[in-house]
Amino acid sequence: MRAAIFRQGEIVVDTLPEPVPGAGQVLVKTLACGICGSDLHARKHAHRMADMRRFLSTNRKPMDPSRDVVFGHEFCCEVIDHGPSTQKRFKPGTRVCSVPGLVSAEGPQSIGYSNENVGGYAERMLLSEALLLEVPNGLPAEHAALTEPLAVGIHAVEKANIRGDEVPLVIGCGPVGLAVIAGLKLKGLHPIVAADYSPARRAFAEKMGADIVVDPAKAAPFTTWAEHAAMTAEQKAARPPAQMWLPPLKQALIFECVGIPGVIQSIFEGAPRDARIVVVGVCMETDTSEPMLGIMKELSVQYVLGYTPAEFASSLRLLAEGKVDAAQLITGTVGLDGVAQAFSDLANPERHTKILIEPWR
Amino acid sequence: MRAAIFRQGEIVVDTLPEPVPGAGQVLVKTLACGICGSDLHARKHAHRMADMRRFLSTNRKPMDPSRDVVFGHEFCCEVIDHGPSTQKRFKPGTRVCSVPGLVSAEGPQSIGYSNENVGGYAERMLLSEALLLEVPNGLPAEHAALTEPLAVGIHAVEKANIRGDEVPLVIGCGPVGLAVIAGLKLKGLHPIVAADYSPARRAFAEKMGADIVVDPAKAAPFTTWAEHAAMTAEQKAARPPAQMWLPPLKQALIFECVGIPGVIQSIFEGAPRDARIVVVGVCMETDTSEPMLGIMKELSVQYVLGYTPAEFASSLRLLAEGKVDAAQLITGTVGLDGVAQAFSDLANPERHTKILIEPWR
Repeated sequence: MRAAIFRQGEIVVDTLPEPVPGAGQVLVKTLACGICGSDLHARKHAHRMADMRRFLSTNRKPMDPSRDVVFGHEFCCEVIDHGPSTQKRFKPGTRVCSVPGLVSAEGPQSIGYSNENVGGYAERMLLSEALLLEVPNGLPAEHAALTEPLAVGIHAVEKANIRGDEVPLVIGCGPVGLAVIAGLKLKGLHPIVAADYSPARRAFAEKMGADIVVDPAKAAPFTTWAEHAAMTAEQKAARPPAQMWLPPLKQALIFECVGIPGVIQSIFEGAPRDARIVVVGVCMETDTSEPMLGIMKELSVQYVLGYTPAEFASSLRLLAEGKVDAAQLITGTVGLDGVAQAFSDLANPERHTKILIEPWR
Repeated sequence: MRAAIFRQGEIVVDTLPEPVPGAGQVLVKTLACGICGSDLHARKHAHRMADMRRFLSTNRKPMDPSRDVVFGHEFCCEVIDHGPSTQKRFKPGTRVCSVPGLVSAEGPQSIGYSNENVGGYAERMLLSEALLLEVPNGLPAEHAALTEPLAVGIHAVEKANIRGDEVPLVIGCGPVGLAVIAGLKLKGLHPIVAADYSPARRAFAEKMGADIVVDPAKAAPFTTWAEHAAMTAEQKAARPPAQMWLPPLKQALIFECVGIPGVIQSIFEGAPRDARIVVVGVCMETDTSEPMLGIMKELSVQYVLGYTPAEFASSLRLLAEGKVDAAQLITGTVGLDGVAQAFSDLANPERHTKILIEPWR
């Protein structure tokens, strides 16, 4: 079969042996697979990602970037065939999604960042039958492929332990920030303030539910945030005497959705006292910050990654029920031969948000 | 009056004008005042501390380290005289404590890190009548002076939002770590694991309530912690399937009580998945860390500082009612002429934990 392969730092198209389903596994045809920002990161920082995984010594086998890897963990597929010891829950032709992992005796193994398990940048792949979710309501495959990136936002919002009195500020409106905005809208928080340098991404942020968008080149996001986070008269009156000298601002809830060094420090500088920060952007480099700022403002930082299986299933339902219109984020589709170019194109936020691969093309 | 003054980076004894109580103020005699780790830090990093305060642009006037400063924010005093517009709530001779701040029209002003308001390293000082707490139960002044450092630990434990299923690990058993241990013991958490290179400080940790102490030179604190944080059979059985591959460990709650660069990164490296970290140590320098570790482990970090007036009052009560025996931490007392030497002596954790100044000596 054909696949777009990460080989020695480049993306090349080549043929690979046909995958053969093992016990509990299902052979599927990849209908659509999103290119994730993490794939772009991984291409640049594959060794570091592998080192980190090795350091954490989880049960997941770390990938060896000097060997072939087939990326792709945001996929929707069609069942082709069943391996041994399967219950054949879904007939061939059924469209399915799955968290990007394979059940194994040593615990879950990665799909998409692995030398063994090919991801969705290939014509066909193997999934664990136990993890399959049928795509409901006739949701198109290209929309179902957005389940995974949406789940990242849903999870980040869940980990924020929302009480209802927060005014959120989303820093960075790439696919991660947009999924966070979708999650915040579902929680009913208003106003949602979002910041990005790109006009196209600010427009997407508004479509996904941001009430206020900020261009950091024109206004400091925290200044705009503060203008929309004024306490009500009741909240102001209810403050303990010791807090009456603090600015009368509602609870700040800041989502870091950029993932490059320096952003956390800039949030530490701009955030108001007692702000809660959720770090969703995956910064793969060493970062520097001033703990003193965190201390003097009593900030809290929750780092998040991924999602639970329940959050993943819930994201698929939200898409199928039309509660989140993520489809508008798809700015392009390519075949396997277009993947290398798509990696370059994604560098321009004006042109692209989410590019889907259709390996069968 | 005489005072030990921070002047051009050194501690010198000199005379200062007698303080005259203004509206709402009380003139007091300093009975005992603790030397805080922050005072040692401030002597080294005074400019940085002032810059940070200026950057935060709070209502507190930042100190100018090129001018005289009288440190001392852990004090117990005796009322001498009342200024105008006071209610004279406490008769001369009454022993009182206060949060180290003065009420002013511009909001609370620092005592102890200020060019205007002398701290407890002086024979006499001014306090705001509205903030005075009478020392109850005949608690000796030198014990009442421990109210402030105890409040720091009580506050850090409050900010940890304890649910009851956590196994705490306290990194660093100086006065801050010991106060945290006292706070954890009051919450009934067991076992409390604590780590420090100093045998004397490990012994104090045990006296304050640590169940297990670790010498990081001999054993990795996180390894020892994990040995005492095994899940019960019920907890193990109650885990969702997706978590069954994770090590069966109870919730980690880690207190950073050291405050030097690199400690947070070492906690990021050693902490188990989902650990909650409370940063109590005040690191005044720029720090570096790997956000990737925080992300892959989904760590959370709560930075804390100070305490609320209610926590301060509660700490004084805990001492007066004998619920916390902090008095054992006093390893020395000096007069004003002994302060400079005490600053050097405190560098040796084997010899000293808390040195009190008795300016009247």
